[in-house]
Amino acid sequence: MCQLLGMNCNTPTDIVFSFSGFATRSTEHADGFGIAFYEGRGVRLFVDHLAARVSPVAELIKRYPIKSSHAIAHIRKATQGVVALENCHPFMRELWGRHWVFAHNGNLVDFAPRLHGAFRPVGDTDSERAFCWLMQELAKSHASMPSVAELTRTLAELAPQVARHGTFNFMLSQGDALWAHCSTNLHYLQRQHPFGMARLQDEDMALNFAELTQADDRVAVIATEPLTLNEDWVKMGAGQLLAFVGGVPVQG
Amino acid sequence: MCQLLGMNCNTPTDIVFSFSGFATRSTEHADGFGIAFYEGRGVRLFVDHLAARVSPVAELIKRYPIKSSHAIAHIRKATQGVVALENCHPFMRELWGRHWVFAHNGNLVDFAPRLHGAFRPVGDTDSERAFCWLMQELAKSHASMPSVAELTRTLAELAPQVARHGTFNFMLSQGDALWAHCSTNLHYLQRQHPFGMARLQDEDMALNFAELTQADDRVAVIATEPLTLNEDWVKMGAGQLLAFVGGVPVQG
Repeated sequence: MCQLLGMNCNTPTDIVFSFSGFATRSTEHADGFGIAFYEGRGVRLFVDHLAARVSPVAELIKRYPIKSSHAIAHIRKATQGVVALENCHPFMRELWGRHWVFAHNGNLVDFAPRLHGAFRPVGDTDSERAFCWLMQELAKSHASMPSVAELTRTLAELAPQVARHGTFNFMLSQGDALWAHCSTNLHYLQRQHPFGMARLQDEDMALNFAELTQADDRVAVIATEPLTLNEDWVKMGAGQLLAFVGGVPVQG
Repeated sequence: MCQLLGMNCNTPTDIVFSFSGFATRSTEHADGFGIAFYEGRGVRLFVDHLAARVSPVAELIKRYPIKSSHAIAHIRKATQGVVALENCHPFMRELWGRHWVFAHNGNLVDFAPRLHGAFRPVGDTDSERAFCWLMQELAKSHASMPSVAELTRTLAELAPQVARHGTFNFMLSQGDALWAHCSTNLHYLQRQHPFGMARLQDEDMALNFAELTQADDRVAVIATEPLTLNEDWVKMGAGQLLAFVGGVPVQG
């Protein structure tokens, strides 16, 4: 299975610490990785067919502190689709003049939705097919960009239709909110004042966020499995959809 | 004005040498850069708001020899649109299940085409507007992916309609061909057997391609200004459209 990592915050923040822990997990997830960063409406999307543990691109991300309001990362263990760049998450499409980014953990069986043409998969994964279908149905449901609350309602109707076909843990963003949907395994964490020390589960690395943050900073980190040892990770429920805005989760 | 760099070849080749020369030109083009690489149907798209001369992302590209069949790079000097990530070329959209990549050099005046919805600009440049319009009109002209020859014919009809509004040097690819359209300034070069020594115009750097290539390798390099001193660059004519396939230009 793949693993997901997301970050949403009210002040652009770098994801170096969380990504460093996440990237070490790629021993078991060696079939590529990807990460997308929003800076305003712009997106930096890095994908590599190499494991995050050895990829020069992942090395850059650990060294270049890209400050972002929304980030979504994925390490891949291929279940459907060959090991190729076009099958690496996150996937990106434009809708209503905004870039949308999507990453999925799980496996969908017999999922062959009708795609009418505006959004078609480039690769051959179930995940990109699900993303194209979500985009198509969002485009059908709204003529232009609706509010985050309206989008959450529409996504709450759409997600179960895909989840019928298998495990559908996903993250989605258009730069205003980050939606996280849990089928089986997704945890989140809120970092806010008073900030403390965080210690990575996978690497001998700790960071004192109190030294790096302002009192009103809020950061939400969402991941398949908790990344740190000494923080309060919340396990999401099966079928739960949350929209994270400004570092705070809003129930779907 | 911005500068463009493109590469098309019959055997995946790295662009490190050409990009190194190109990136030094960013002293005068300091408002961001971007480069897209095709590997099969997959695309790596790197953009940065920093100049290519100082960007850590550009540094990665000079060190990580990404082997690609089609590459398009751009260094930006803002004429329209603020300096922001969403205004950095190349731009990317999906059509007919393939990623399309576009970069533009020039300035379009009073160019406000009707965009019906399937392709909308995320940023506020004339260039992304032109790309969205080209994608929209290609989608209207063909129900699914046509041949390169048919696409060239359609693009040859579309390009002059944009070029009426100003300078429209552009490069476009979907991974099967690289189209180059010249309004004012675009040069190309074919490297093929017998390969020789190439010396960069902008940096004290030379490379003996004879040592790095096979006899049947073919590479076409397209750039705003010639990148090397001792090779036969061909200046494209005003209004000329070429499709490069397998390292060879085909007249539009």
